[in-house]
Amino acid sequence: MSEPHSFAPYQNLVQITRELSFLNSTGSVLSWDQETYMPPKAADFRAEQLAYFGASAHRLFTAPEVGDSLKACEDKEFAVDTVEAVNIRNWRWEYDRNTKLSTALVEAFERDRSHAHHAWIEARKKSDYSIFSPHFAKLLEHRRCMADLWGYEDSPYDALLTGYERGAKTRDLRNLFSDLGPAVSLLVTEAAERSKSVPADLLLGHYPVAAQQAFNREVAEVLGFDFGAGRIDTTTHPFCSGMGPNDCRLTTRYNETDFTSSLYGVMHETGHGLYDQGLLKEYYGTPMGDAVSLGIHESQSRLWENKVGRSRSFWEYWHPRAAKYFPELKKISLENLLACVNRVERSFVRVEADEVSYDLHIMLRFQIEVLLIEGDLEVKDVPEIWNNLFLQLFNLEVPDDARGCLQDIHWSMGGLGYFATYTLGNLNSTQLFRKATSDLPGLGKDLAAGNYASLLTWLRENVHRHGQRYDSPDLILKATGETTQAGYHLEYLHGKFC
Amino acid sequence: MSEPHSFAPYQNLVQITRELSFLNSTGSVLSWDQETYMPPKAADFRAEQLAYFGASAHRLFTAPEVGDSLKACEDKEFAVDTVEAVNIRNWRWEYDRNTKLSTALVEAFERDRSHAHHAWIEARKKSDYSIFSPHFAKLLEHRRCMADLWGYEDSPYDALLTGYERGAKTRDLRNLFSDLGPAVSLLVTEAAERSKSVPADLLLGHYPVAAQQAFNREVAEVLGFDFGAGRIDTTTHPFCSGMGPNDCRLTTRYNETDFTSSLYGVMHETGHGLYDQGLLKEYYGTPMGDAVSLGIHESQSRLWENKVGRSRSFWEYWHPRAAKYFPELKKISLENLLACVNRVERSFVRVEADEVSYDLHIMLRFQIEVLLIEGDLEVKDVPEIWNNLFLQLFNLEVPDDARGCLQDIHWSMGGLGYFATYTLGNLNSTQLFRKATSDLPGLGKDLAAGNYASLLTWLRENVHRHGQRYDSPDLILKATGETTQAGYHLEYLHGKFC
Repeated sequence: MSEPHSFAPYQNLVQITRELSFLNSTGSVLSWDQETYMPPKAADFRAEQLAYFGASAHRLFTAPEVGDSLKACEDKEFAVDTVEAVNIRNWRWEYDRNTKLSTALVEAFERDRSHAHHAWIEARKKSDYSIFSPHFAKLLEHRRCMADLWGYEDSPYDALLTGYERGAKTRDLRNLFSDLGPAVSLLVTEAAERSKSVPADLLLGHYPVAAQQAFNREVAEVLGFDFGAGRIDTTTHPFCSGMGPNDCRLTTRYNETDFTSSLYGVMHETGHGLYDQGLLKEYYGTPMGDAVSLGIHESQSRLWENKVGRSRSFWEYWHPRAAKYFPELKKISLENLLACVNRVERSFVRVEADEVSYDLHIMLRFQIEVLLIEGDLEVKDVPEIWNNLFLQLFNLEVPDDARGCLQDIHWSMGGLGYFATYTLGNLNSTQLFRKATSDLPGLGKDLAAGNYASLLTWLRENVHRHGQRYDSPDLILKATGETTQAGYHLEYLHGKFC
Repeated sequence: MSEPHSFAPYQNLVQITRELSFLNSTGSVLSWDQETYMPPKAADFRAEQLAYFGASAHRLFTAPEVGDSLKACEDKEFAVDTVEAVNIRNWRWEYDRNTKLSTALVEAFERDRSHAHHAWIEARKKSDYSIFSPHFAKLLEHRRCMADLWGYEDSPYDALLTGYERGAKTRDLRNLFSDLGPAVSLLVTEAAERSKSVPADLLLGHYPVAAQQAFNREVAEVLGFDFGAGRIDTTTHPFCSGMGPNDCRLTTRYNETDFTSSLYGVMHETGHGLYDQGLLKEYYGTPMGDAVSLGIHESQSRLWENKVGRSRSFWEYWHPRAAKYFPELKKISLENLLACVNRVERSFVRVEADEVSYDLHIMLRFQIEVLLIEGDLEVKDVPEIWNNLFLQLFNLEVPDDARGCLQDIHWSMGGLGYFATYTLGNLNSTQLFRKATSDLPGLGKDLAAGNYASLLTWLRENVHRHGQRYDSPDLILKATGETTQAGYHLEYLHGKFC
């Protein structure tokens, strides 16, 4: 590894972003604590505290001094693809984006999303959208205001989307979904029919939380997650939060009648965690040591959850091991177990959806988000349109908002413009796994033997270590030889499920 | 409650201390997380992060602007004992104290104590003082340097002590301990002899952690601790940390053979927590909403732990309730239970010491701290002098440093000058409880009925709500009609144990 360049303006930026990393990490710890352990009455003070740190970070990074140092670095013209050039390019993008917002707006957004989040938890518990609705309206207003300040050509949604997936376009996603949607719908119908051969309740039993925790931990550890630098806690909505160069925290939730819910939650978050733990620590706090986009992040989580976790080779190895924690499983054959974890069925909850119908859930959210951001839908009307679209896509009546528009955490955190990256993640996960399989002839055997090192090494090498060296389309091109192709994913689904 | 005064320099100070409260609260969350859940490899980054926030808080509060506003407030001459006057007087004290230190020293101290703390955990686990010793030496050097910068008349120890207990003098404490020490030693001999009538292992059994947690929580809740604004976690060393106006976190540790260890740990920390929860939230972040001193804080913890928790009335109510969690207790009579929790015996561990011998543990630590700070003892020689003094005071050979000089957390956090406040706390707890008993004729009945509201209200009224309105000697004078008297404590011990 080369030492950071000694050019003073560059050093100055490294120093400032180090300070920024303390502030951002603190925001992550405070948010994680808010989700996991914070006593409920502490919510108001925590909201103020998060607003304060959000504002402090914004103020620090938008200081004119940062602009001056950036300019000086750009004038120096570091060679393309050097660590310095990567950082400068990405800092510039972040700086231009941040300086378009006022610190007051950032502060208000942070405060409001913290309050909104608590309202969402209560609303979801009571399945009462009216508790969340006024908070959601405030967040939407902030996000629309940000989109206007950031600017856009076609759609204000572009301005938000690009914050999660640099350069992605609403128009392209619309086209993608209009191809993918009907194809997926057909696959769902066919696969759901085949899934009926196994009873839906075959796996249901009593799986104590402590046994699930122990099993999940063993799985995550064998996949490669370093528990010396991470942990798993319990939250309403599973997430993964990297809060330091050696501090990555996963969360999940438990259903005592179905161990696969927390297991696949953990495998999903472990995928995020392995990416986080594979970023180069010596660049922590700079773009070179940071994840490139949500679509790439999600490619990692979906790869470990589905390509690995729902495969025959996975269960060949883990079936007898799982049975030590859950004696019920001794009575279930490998074939039936595989059929259960790959059961395709139209259902209400995205994070528990099968691989085939999953993208329909995303499509629905994407459509609603675009309507909201483009001003064609009011917040109060979200449940109605959700339920109507759900009926169209899934042919199911949504029984309550907890299983409808209140199910996901994202909007409560102001994450509008975010969901579409999940479908990009799915497509990328298929394409990356396909390439890894072709690059590593022994991979099938490794996985069946519970040996995940070769796959992890391939991902470290082709994805993780690059940080933000390449934008995501470029990263996928370099890793797989092609840009993201929806065809491979449809082919994979067809091969596996039909 | 009056609105904060609109005088602009005063408003400015309120604003700055609000910002300071965000930083300090964050330091508390980061420290609490470090003790409870943080993955071990995150320690180095966390140390840097804590150093950064320590330095930020110091820089913020020592800015010349703060001095200017303070001066303007002092010139305005607010009426004595108004909220404004209380805050200004205490800010001035803090400001003068803080401006004598450089931010660089504060930052280095924060970083080193975070590292020292991890070293101490390891050293204690392995009972290997050499792991902790070099870290301890660094912290001692910082503390001696601070004492010199703060200045003192008689002893550099005064300069540290006053940071925990404003105005307390080393000389007075020496005199106190030279009176108290022999008197306590005599009491210990006599009470230990009487305690032999009940077998030492009578209470030993198997008490699962989950049952202890449930019982402790019920006790803390009934005492008045608000779990909507607080919680209990597990740590190496029990503590209480207030980290916001509605966020107070207690910790304890568990011994599965003896439930009283975690119970009294929790009751002790609950005492701290009730003080914290009784501070006036509208003044949070200012001296008027902050605890006055460690000696007063400890008076609250010792009062609930001992005056309440080791009393006959406590167990009259809780014995049958405890037996629901711990069936073993059904076989033990109330008399024997009381004899066990009041067993007096010379033993190694301070936090598990009986009420009588407790102050001998403090005396030992006080003597060693004074020698270290006055330069008459080197860090490497601490185990030897500890063990020698222990033999003199307790007539026991310390078997290892884990049960000797490594047992307490305080030095690992740079808390030198702190221990003597525990004995002040003991004396104050006796005096306050004595006065509450005389003010509240029905108190005995209330406590025997598990009704703690009258006692808590008395403490809220006479101690908690005052924040830093009065210095601690004055607070005790106003609450009890006298300054702190050692005689009451000796009388109490004699009455209860001999």
